[in-house]
Amino acid sequence: MKSLFYSFLFLILVCGIQEKMISSSWSDEGMWLFNKPPIKQLKERYRMELTQDWLDHARLSSIRFNNGGSGSFVSANGLIITNHHIGADSLQKLSTANNNLLERGFYAAKREQELRCPDLELNVLESIEDVTERVNAKILPTMSSTQANTIRRATMSEIEKESLERTKLRSDIVTLYQGGQYHLYRYRKYTDVRLVMAPEQSIAFFGGDTDNFEFPRYNLDICLFRAYENDKPVKPKHYLKFSSIGPQENDLVFVVGNPGTTNRLETYEQLQHRRDYSHPYFLNYLRTMEAKLIQHSENGIEDRRQASSDLRRFSNARKAISGQYLGLLDPSILRQKQITEFQFLDELRHSLARSGKQEIPYTDAKVQQYLRMLDKVRLLHRHLRSFEKEYYLLERGDGFNSRYFQIARQIVRLTAELKKPSSDRLREYRDSNLDSLKFQLFSPAPIYPEVEKAKMLQSLTFMAEQLGGDHPLIQLVLDGHSPIQVVERLIGKTRLGDSSYRKELVKGGWETVLKSDDPMIQFARYLDERARKIRSTYENEFEEPERQVFGEMARLRFEVKGDSIPPDATFTLRLAFGVVKGYQIGDQSVPYCTKFSGIYKRAEEHRFIDPFNLPETWLHKKEKINLDCPFNFVSTADTIGGNSGSPVLNRAGEFVGINFDRNRFGLIRNFVYTDHQARHVAVHSQAILEALKNVYGYEELVQELIPIEKKKAEKAKRSRN
Amino acid sequence: MKSLFYSFLFLILVCGIQEKMISSSWSDEGMWLFNKPPIKQLKERYRMELTQDWLDHARLSSIRFNNGGSGSFVSANGLIITNHHIGADSLQKLSTANNNLLERGFYAAKREQELRCPDLELNVLESIEDVTERVNAKILPTMSSTQANTIRRATMSEIEKESLERTKLRSDIVTLYQGGQYHLYRYRKYTDVRLVMAPEQSIAFFGGDTDNFEFPRYNLDICLFRAYENDKPVKPKHYLKFSSIGPQENDLVFVVGNPGTTNRLETYEQLQHRRDYSHPYFLNYLRTMEAKLIQHSENGIEDRRQASSDLRRFSNARKAISGQYLGLLDPSILRQKQITEFQFLDELRHSLARSGKQEIPYTDAKVQQYLRMLDKVRLLHRHLRSFEKEYYLLERGDGFNSRYFQIARQIVRLTAELKKPSSDRLREYRDSNLDSLKFQLFSPAPIYPEVEKAKMLQSLTFMAEQLGGDHPLIQLVLDGHSPIQVVERLIGKTRLGDSSYRKELVKGGWETVLKSDDPMIQFARYLDERARKIRSTYENEFEEPERQVFGEMARLRFEVKGDSIPPDATFTLRLAFGVVKGYQIGDQSVPYCTKFSGIYKRAEEHRFIDPFNLPETWLHKKEKINLDCPFNFVSTADTIGGNSGSPVLNRAGEFVGINFDRNRFGLIRNFVYTDHQARHVAVHSQAILEALKNVYGYEELVQELIPIEKKKAEKAKRSRN
Repeated sequence: MKSLFYSFLFLILVCGIQEKMISSSWSDEGMWLFNKPPIKQLKERYRMELTQDWLDHARLSSIRFNNGGSGSFVSANGLIITNHHIGADSLQKLSTANNNLLERGFYAAKREQELRCPDLELNVLESIEDVTERVNAKILPTMSSTQANTIRRATMSEIEKESLERTKLRSDIVTLYQGGQYHLYRYRKYTDVRLVMAPEQSIAFFGGDTDNFEFPRYNLDICLFRAYENDKPVKPKHYLKFSSIGPQENDLVFVVGNPGTTNRLETYEQLQHRRDYSHPYFLNYLRTMEAKLIQHSENGIEDRRQASSDLRRFSNARKAISGQYLGLLDPSILRQKQITEFQFLDELRHSLARSGKQEIPYTDAKVQQYLRMLDKVRLLHRHLRSFEKEYYLLERGDGFNSRYFQIARQIVRLTAELKKPSSDRLREYRDSNLDSLKFQLFSPAPIYPEVEKAKMLQSLTFMAEQLGGDHPLIQLVLDGHSPIQVVERLIGKTRLGDSSYRKELVKGGWETVLKSDDPMIQFARYLDERARKIRSTYENEFEEPERQVFGEMARLRFEVKGDSIPPDATFTLRLAFGVVKGYQIGDQSVPYCTKFSGIYKRAEEHRFIDPFNLPETWLHKKEKINLDCPFNFVSTADTIGGNSGSPVLNRAGEFVGINFDRNRFGLIRNFVYTDHQARHVAVHSQAILEALKNVYGYEELVQELIPIEKKKAEKAKRSRN
Repeated sequence: MKSLFYSFLFLILVCGIQEKMISSSWSDEGMWLFNKPPIKQLKERYRMELTQDWLDHARLSSIRFNNGGSGSFVSANGLIITNHHIGADSLQKLSTANNNLLERGFYAAKREQELRCPDLELNVLESIEDVTERVNAKILPTMSSTQANTIRRATMSEIEKESLERTKLRSDIVTLYQGGQYHLYRYRKYTDVRLVMAPEQSIAFFGGDTDNFEFPRYNLDICLFRAYENDKPVKPKHYLKFSSIGPQENDLVFVVGNPGTTNRLETYEQLQHRRDYSHPYFLNYLRTMEAKLIQHSENGIEDRRQASSDLRRFSNARKAISGQYLGLLDPSILRQKQITEFQFLDELRHSLARSGKQEIPYTDAKVQQYLRMLDKVRLLHRHLRSFEKEYYLLERGDGFNSRYFQIARQIVRLTAELKKPSSDRLREYRDSNLDSLKFQLFSPAPIYPEVEKAKMLQSLTFMAEQLGGDHPLIQLVLDGHSPIQVVERLIGKTRLGDSSYRKELVKGGWETVLKSDDPMIQFARYLDERARKIRSTYENEFEEPERQVFGEMARLRFEVKGDSIPPDATFTLRLAFGVVKGYQIGDQSVPYCTKFSGIYKRAEEHRFIDPFNLPETWLHKKEKINLDCPFNFVSTADTIGGNSGSPVLNRAGEFVGINFDRNRFGLIRNFVYTDHQARHVAVHSQAILEALKNVYGYEELVQELIPIEKKKAEKAKRSRN
């Protein structure tokens, strides 16, 4: 859960630039819950009957990648497709100095050649249950925030544990509407996941940082895995039929995946706080880490390889958050948010009027209640300012950015928490989460000390920049030494790179941890009291009271509007819909899709210089490719980071493409949906087939995706021999 | 002057990492004034008699590059040598999309092929006069800071103007000892400067950001110009004889150049302020601008070319300031500064004791005065916190980083200031500075709108991050629009890229500026009142009172120590001395010089990948080169940014090399001198000859540098034909 939390903060919060705000009650906005689907909207707008079977098939074919993305089953033998940039974490972990899979790509023509990923966990959503009442049952209005938080946490752990024991399924309670509802999500887990195919990074991420969040695009951003159970390929009950035709212009399409975070239900004050406090801090942090890793990468080819996935994560987040920040600076965005609040006040008064009275004065109790809540949000954020940075640096670990530190802290806390009953523990150490947590903690994936030193040195330095050299936390961390000396001592001598040592510590429990002379373990122990303190300040003085206010606001909103507005994204399964169509930028028309011919043209414009270089195969096979084949396409469906790898379905529920990005007009979607120019970007299913067949010649894979093509492939094979 | 000021802030403030502090009264510390040379030290330590002739010859052969570096005359026909990275600004301005001189290099075998630089001004220091008494004469202790500042500024302008009119020489008063002394420097100016030769960027900056501030090094960091007057090459009375032997290990050498800024005489409180306020701000700013330009460069080859010199400036500054910041975080550095202050207190008490009394109590008036001054420095810096950022963003222009904005502001202010008498103007608009200012302002060098848009958008955004979206300054600047809209409006429609329009505005004066509909001019006008206000707050409430405190402290220091300690660097001519020698890192010995063989080895280690690629010529000519020839070397002489391009002289006053960098141990030198491992890095004079002769075959140039080699060269020429 911790690592998820980190992924979100860097990868998923995304928003941006906009040219013109269009707000329409008839828009395709919405990341809909599967237990509250947009049946009415689809029927009225697209004459589409959304059946329970359709929904179940889509849900059970969909997969959450626990490192921060989405995917889907696409064959009867457990074949899974996601984005290359979602598979990148595993590709990096499976690479060595002499075999860089991330860069060169990979293909297993036979099952026995498939490579097992060290720590990839996949989840399929089996069921959803509304447990709001039970979660809130023991909370009394007279309780302090600390009491309420403790009780709520305990109740949630209980419900999850009970469900896990009863169903044997991973059971997580999801907080919706910022505390307005609580739903229990049950997942089937897959932890034996093997790599089947990845294209070269240069075609998967063609155009690099330059084309990231742009359109037209030419990315084969795909990666294929296979799920195993008991050493045999999984036979999923549901998987998506692969369409060899794909979407056409004006087609209705669906995106099914796990959008990470949106902030559309946040108040004006919250967005202001993001603009003036959280985002400037994040931007500074991301740029700091990015600059350090660029510098480190220049040391040599192997350093570059080792740092590459961290670096890409930081660059991507920096570009996304910069876009979001520009959106927050645009006065029209915040103005719109203010207007929304005034409008709700009007709606509230109208709805009260309908239920009897004629003219509702602003002194009405409910109106006053709403205004009081807005004010409370403001005060909570003002209070947050005084400890926000320290919380990020110390508890979230921004000041100690290193895999070694994360491991040390998890071991220290895990062994300490295990002494308590599950319901009293810090939430990520509850019983129902321990398997997933240990799966990550004991991962045999390599850790590279030089990259970790660079990251930790830079993050310690950043912490000093933020807090000032005399801050007690800095004094505590440096303890009379220079940052370089501290990092050399901690990382130079830690044994935590060895996963068997981690197991030994966890097995030995708290007493063993106490006796450990590992410098990183000692360091994490040394800081833990202070870190827990700032965490409890954050939770009790900000998070819980905020949750209560939002709970109240959500109840008011339900009274007026019903739950017709879907909750903000929470990295759980959602359904979005939209139309495949291009857009205008000034006088220029951007068509709904690009073609294979375009990638050669764009590479040539940039003289084939990185990030516009093409893999050798693509250069050699140009003659054999259908240059008119569609490559990437866009639709108006509502997506956000976390939706990476989400399948795009047609009305028939077939796989017609895979989402991988938004254009820059879509960066604003964290805060506001618009379909004026904002689009999500996907790889066309035809492009996937064209590449697998005519660029790579991976017939086995094509056969598995399109069994009907088997004969053709066999014929092709014969003619090659 | 403004552009100088900018250059300093980004290029010159430099300090860094250190392994161990060594403080020795016998060290080679010192950037000595030419009117206060280290005669005694050189005699006692090196038995060297420093004569007035030697000093005059060195001074009059030396050149200040007004874009932030140093150089020297090296032939009877006005040939000048400096660093490639100092020439880079002119190389960039002389380049076009189809002819990238910065990257490919340049050579004019004949005079008529030499290229005139659009805006390069060179200065030769003709004389120095101490004017401290006159500058302070009218300042009374009863005056307010504002009065004192106004009067001091007026007196300085008067002195400079009088000197200019009398001598026709550029006349600048330099503030030494942070206000303890004022010296008048008179310069001969050269504004017709032509490019003679530059090597390829890949050999001049071999190893790029990775090897920057490191040693061993292999950089041919040279660039040759020629000064002209009346369209004829200048025949300087003094120029340095080029040594074809160069320095050997343990040789005494001298570095003569213009070190930019050091902070060695600053108090503990000042360094703390840098650590906790100024440096975190700068680092954030530099990384922001760097990230933006990296992103912009990825758009394409021409974008990369246009952004390259800006990008290198930001990267270099980021690396330098990061090193400085790590130094400030090292508790031993600040501790040493505290100890120095206590020591001075002891010395003060001893010196008072010598002049009569036995035991001097801390209640003694002079001791109390010193302590009061330390306290005053602390309070001034505390006050500075409340307006420091706004001063940087608004008045220094960090919030509007764009050449167009700088031009607009200069035009607006120049025309406004010209209505006043010289002594009442903002200092950079005094009569004696106008020629140099207009030379820069009317430069025909190209300005690239897309780079400027990227820089300005990023800096506006950064300003909002720093001040918050609701700050009056942000409201004023955005005026209801998004940052993108503001930048598009200002840069999309300005005519200031055309230097004839700039001349027209200045010629028309204030009335024409008032009527101008140029959006950037209007923007600069719109902001000017507020900018001037924050400037006067900065000057009157911080700079002038600080100057007064430092004046007092300097007088106390002179009483105790005499002026045996040279003042902090001020980008004026200084003399440093040291010994050519290697050093130890742990068990590893780093020899005093590298050889030509080493560069091929290092390039191979990095598979010839940028920044370790070698120019074609260097690859082809490998067989013809003496691989044992020394390449770069190090000495203990005391240098800092601004010394780039400084000639290194031997006892005989001959040119034996050219300084271009420090190693990372030398980054700390802003605050503390150490010769334990800290070294400056220079190109060996033999390396320059070897490259010109055997790599490039530029015989004409070799002849001019070493006239005695003329015959050999002619012979070589004959054998080629």
